[in-house]
Amino acid sequence: MRQSRYFIQTMREIPSEAEVISHQLMLRAGMIKKVAAGIYDYLPLGLKVIRKVENIVRENMNKAGAVELLMSVVQPAELWQLSGRWNHFGKELLRFKDRGERDFCLGPTHEEVITDIVKSQVNSYKQMPVTLYQIQTKFRDEVRPRFGLMRGREFIMKDAYSFDIDDAGADISYQKMYDAYRSVFNACGLRHKVVDADTGAIGGSFSHEFMVLADTGEDAVMSCTKCDYSANIEKAQVVDNGEKETVELSPLEEVATPDKHTALEVAEFLGVDIKHVPKTMIIRCEGVMDGKEEKTIFVACMVRGDHEVNLTKVKNIVKAKSAEFAEHYEVQDMTGCAVGSLGPVNMPLKVYVDNALKYVSNIVVGANKESYHIKNVNLDRDAKIEGYFDIRNALSGDKCPLCGAEYEETRGIEVGHIFKLGTKYSESMGAKALDKNGKNIPIVMGCYGIGIGRTAASAIEQNYDESGIIWPKAVAPFEAVVVPVNTNDEEVIKKADEIYECLLNMGVDVLIDDRNERAGVKFNDADLIGYPLRVSVGKKTLSDGKVEVLIRRTKEVILIDADNSAAEKIKEILDTKVL
Amino acid sequence: MRQSRYFIQTMREIPSEAEVISHQLMLRAGMIKKVAAGIYDYLPLGLKVIRKVENIVRENMNKAGAVELLMSVVQPAELWQLSGRWNHFGKELLRFKDRGERDFCLGPTHEEVITDIVKSQVNSYKQMPVTLYQIQTKFRDEVRPRFGLMRGREFIMKDAYSFDIDDAGADISYQKMYDAYRSVFNACGLRHKVVDADTGAIGGSFSHEFMVLADTGEDAVMSCTKCDYSANIEKAQVVDNGEKETVELSPLEEVATPDKHTALEVAEFLGVDIKHVPKTMIIRCEGVMDGKEEKTIFVACMVRGDHEVNLTKVKNIVKAKSAEFAEHYEVQDMTGCAVGSLGPVNMPLKVYVDNALKYVSNIVVGANKESYHIKNVNLDRDAKIEGYFDIRNALSGDKCPLCGAEYEETRGIEVGHIFKLGTKYSESMGAKALDKNGKNIPIVMGCYGIGIGRTAASAIEQNYDESGIIWPKAVAPFEAVVVPVNTNDEEVIKKADEIYECLLNMGVDVLIDDRNERAGVKFNDADLIGYPLRVSVGKKTLSDGKVEVLIRRTKEVILIDADNSAAEKIKEILDTKVL
Repeated sequence: MRQSRYFIQTMREIPSEAEVISHQLMLRAGMIKKVAAGIYDYLPLGLKVIRKVENIVRENMNKAGAVELLMSVVQPAELWQLSGRWNHFGKELLRFKDRGERDFCLGPTHEEVITDIVKSQVNSYKQMPVTLYQIQTKFRDEVRPRFGLMRGREFIMKDAYSFDIDDAGADISYQKMYDAYRSVFNACGLRHKVVDADTGAIGGSFSHEFMVLADTGEDAVMSCTKCDYSANIEKAQVVDNGEKETVELSPLEEVATPDKHTALEVAEFLGVDIKHVPKTMIIRCEGVMDGKEEKTIFVACMVRGDHEVNLTKVKNIVKAKSAEFAEHYEVQDMTGCAVGSLGPVNMPLKVYVDNALKYVSNIVVGANKESYHIKNVNLDRDAKIEGYFDIRNALSGDKCPLCGAEYEETRGIEVGHIFKLGTKYSESMGAKALDKNGKNIPIVMGCYGIGIGRTAASAIEQNYDESGIIWPKAVAPFEAVVVPVNTNDEEVIKKADEIYECLLNMGVDVLIDDRNERAGVKFNDADLIGYPLRVSVGKKTLSDGKVEVLIRRTKEVILIDADNSAAEKIKEILDTKVL
Repeated sequence: MRQSRYFIQTMREIPSEAEVISHQLMLRAGMIKKVAAGIYDYLPLGLKVIRKVENIVRENMNKAGAVELLMSVVQPAELWQLSGRWNHFGKELLRFKDRGERDFCLGPTHEEVITDIVKSQVNSYKQMPVTLYQIQTKFRDEVRPRFGLMRGREFIMKDAYSFDIDDAGADISYQKMYDAYRSVFNACGLRHKVVDADTGAIGGSFSHEFMVLADTGEDAVMSCTKCDYSANIEKAQVVDNGEKETVELSPLEEVATPDKHTALEVAEFLGVDIKHVPKTMIIRCEGVMDGKEEKTIFVACMVRGDHEVNLTKVKNIVKAKSAEFAEHYEVQDMTGCAVGSLGPVNMPLKVYVDNALKYVSNIVVGANKESYHIKNVNLDRDAKIEGYFDIRNALSGDKCPLCGAEYEETRGIEVGHIFKLGTKYSESMGAKALDKNGKNIPIVMGCYGIGIGRTAASAIEQNYDESGIIWPKAVAPFEAVVVPVNTNDEEVIKKADEIYECLLNMGVDVLIDDRNERAGVKFNDADLIGYPLRVSVGKKTLSDGKVEVLIRRTKEVILIDADNSAAEKIKEILDTKVL
C-alpha cells in the first residue's frame, strides 16, 4: 500500500480522554476514532489489525471443526423471555422498541439466538457434536465504558457455542475449544496464561479464562511458581492450613476506639498485630433461592485484617446470583451499627468466617457499637458462626492447591473466556434431541468467547515503549514500512519503490511511506504505529550501496546491500528475527 | 468440507411466510433463519454466499483505490442533528435511548459518521481524493419488511463515500465507483443494467442504479432497444412529441356520469376513446420551500386515461422533498369534491398537465361535482393550467430521448446505487478543506451503496428452476458437490473421497455429501441448494470406470473416466463450462 493513497493521520499529543496506554496509542496512531462513550470507528489501520486477529481466530475455529454463521445484531425480547434473562440481565442489555412498539434488544451475547437455531434444526444425536461460531458486533451498555477498545459498549467478538448429546461429548467439545484458544493467542504472538475462572452470570459448570499478560492488566492472576496451575484471583483457591495458636483464652473486654475504623487503625491504636484484628463486612447477596423464590439476603463475612474478602467465593458459598458489599445505609439498617465497628458477637446476620481465622486466638473485633471494639474474642467461644470457609483473595506466597508450591501474582487482560454451560439454556428454551436410546433430552452446551478488539488492545498493553506500539508481526497493520528518506532524490525514490514492489510480490504486507515529508516525521510515525520492520532508503547509505533495516522491537539496525537481493534479505530478517 | 461435519438442514415444504422465490429458496435450502420480521440469521451456507459477494466487492473497491474502514452500528443523535436528518429521516431511523437517557440510533446509512471522520482528519486538498468504504450491518425500521433478504430491516451493506476538493475531482471519483460496480456485478456473474436514477431522499446532483435483471424484479426499467440508454421508470424521460388533432373545438357540455369513476368507466359510458378521458389526481407535495420555510402543498396533475402519473417527476417539477397521492379526505378538503369526479375546470389547486394532453382536443374531464363530467373541454381554452410537463411513466414503445428508437420495459432488482452528493453534508456538518489557493471550502462528496444480501437474493431471482437455485459459480456456497451414491460400497466411498481430496487440493471450493442417506435425498438437496456442479460416484457407473458430472444450469451430464485424471477433468469442466 502507498501511504499517499491510504488514510492515516497520527497525532502527537496524548489525548486527555485516554487513561490506558493502548487507548492512547490507538488514538495517536489513528487506528480508532471515538463516536460516543464506548463506541469507536475502526479507521483503516485499526481495521487491518482487527481483521488479522479475526482471521487468526477464524482459521483456528475452522481447524477445530467449528462452523461459521452470522446471527442478528437486533434480537427480539421473546427469546430472552424464554431463557428468563429479559428481566435478569440488568441495564447492560440495551432494550428498545421498534416502530410497531415491539420489544427488542441489541445482542450482548447470543446464547438465546443460537439455542433457538439449534432447536429448530437439530433433533437427533446424529446431528451432533456441532460447534457454531460467529464474528460479530455486539453491544453492552456498560455503566462506565472506558479504556478504548478494552471496555467498549460496541465491540467485536467471536462467540462460539457447542452442542452435544451428553456430558462426555460436551467435555470433548470444550477441550477442542480450549486447545484452539491456545493456538489463537500463540498465533497472535501474545504471552498469555489460561486460568481457572468462575462461571459468573453466564452460569454452567466450569470455565477458563485466557489472559494476556501485561503489567497494566485489570485482572490479578495467581499462578503456581512450580506447576501449571493458574487461576483468576476470583477463583484461586486458598489452601486451609496453619496451626492454632497455643495461648490461654482471655476474657472478653470492651474497649473504646474513638475514630478508629480500619483494622490497621485499630491494631495500631491497641498495639495488636493486625492478624488479630479481623475485618467484618456486610455483603448483599441477590438471587438466593428460598423454596421457589429468589431472595436478597445480607450476610456478615470475616477475614483477617491483612486479607481481602473475595466476593465471588462468598457468592458461591451462599449460592447467590451476585454478591456485593452492602451500601452504608444498608449496613446501618441490617445491623443497627455503622461500618467500622462491626463484629461477630451478637451479629444479627449469619456470619461466614475465613479459614485463616481458625488459627488465631484472643482477637479484636468491632462491638457493633460505634467507636467500641471487643478484645480477646475467640470465635468458637464467643460468637455464633456458620463455619470457616475459603472466602479471601489468594496472595503471593500462598500455597498452590495442586502441588503445594507458592503462588505468585501476575496481572492479565481477559481476552477469552470459555464455559461449560450444561443444559441451562437448552432446558429453559426447550432445545432437545433424541439420544441413542430414542429418549428426548436437553442438549448439553458450551460457550466460548474471544474479544477481538480487546485482543488487539492487549497486544499493545503487552508490547509498547516510549515511542509507540511494538506490534507482534502476526497482528501488525503492516509487517514492514519502506521509507524513502530523501523524497527529492530520484535514486532514493527508485530504489525504495523497487524494494517495496519486490516485497509486495513476495507476499509481504508492506507499506511505503511515499509522502513528501521530512524523514523525522516518517520515522516518528513508523515508531508510533509500530510496524515490526522499518526499511529506510537514504541518499547517504545508498551511496555506500546500503539500505538500513530497523527491527522495531529490539532497535537492532542491520545494513543490507542495496542490490537485487535486498527484498529477499528483508524477507529473511522478517521471517527469522521478527516476532 | 464434509457435510457430516457441517451444518445444513434443508426443508421440503414451501414456507408460507415467503412470497418471493429467493426468500422461499433461501429458507428451504437452510441458508437463512428468521429471527423477527425483517431480521435474519445467516446460517453457514447463506453466510458463505454473503462472504463471496463481500469479497468480490472488497476486491473491486480496493482495486479502485478505495480504503476500507469500519464505522459503528450505534450512532449518537448529535451527528444526525448536525446534518439536520434527526428530525427528517422518518421512522425508518430506529431511535432509542441508552441507560444514561442519551439519544442514539441504529445506523441506516453513514453519511453523518463518515463526514465527521473526514472533518476530523482531512484539512487540505493534498489529502484528497480519498474514497472510504465499509461492509457492515445496518438497520432500517421498514414499515413492511418482506421478501427475506430483499427488503429486510437488518441488512449487510457496502457503503463507500468519496471526498474531493472540487466538482471535477468528484466526477472522477464517481466514475471510478461506477466502473468498479460494473466489475462487481460482472464478477458475480449477474446480468444487470445501469440506469439513470432519481437522487431521492439522499439528495445530490446525479445518480445511477445498478439493476440485476429478473422477471420478478420490483423495479421497472426502461431501456432503449437500440442505444445504451436505460433509466429507472421513476426517471425515464418521455419525449414530448405528437401532432395536435385538427378538429373543431366544440362547446362545453356537462353530463351526468352516475357511478362512473375511473377513466375507463367514463370512456365506455360516453363512448369516447380513453385517450380523450384524462385522469386528474391530487398530489401532496411535502418540503416545498416558501421563502425560508418548508411547506406542504397540494397540486392537481393530469395525464391521459391510459397513462400513469409519475410521482418522482411531479416531485422534481414542484421542487418538493416528497410527493404522494393525497388521501381521500385530503382531496375532499382541498377541492370540495371526491376522487373520481375531479377535473381542471375551476380547480382551486395549481394544475400540472402531461405533455401528451397537448395534442388532444374536446376531452372529457371531471366536473368537480360528484357524478358529473364535462365534455368538449379544451385545456388552453377552458382551464387555468401551470403548463405542460413530462409527468407520466414511460411505456414500451415510447421514444428514447437519446436516439429516438423505442423503449422496452424490463424488470430489475436494485442492488447498487451511486450518488453524486455535492456539498450537502460537508456544508451542514462543516467538513471543509483548504484548496490550492488556500481557501477553506466544503468538500465535494459522493456516496455509493451495494446491498450485499440483496445481491445474493437477486442472484437467485435471476437463476432458479423448479428444483431449486442455480448459483452463478462466483457466488455459490460451494462450487461443486461430490455425492457418493452407494454409501455401503467401499469402492464408491474411496473414489468419492479421493476425488474430493484432489479437488480440495486444486483449490476448488467443494463439499462432499458423506451423509448416510439415499441418493435421491442427496440429489434433491444438491438441486435445491444449487451447487453449479454435481459429481456422482455410483457403483454402477464406477464398474464401467466412469463418474457422472452434472452441470446444474444446463442439466448436461458428462461421464468422465474414474481414474487419476478425474479431478482434473472436473476442474476443467468447472473452468470452461460452468458460469
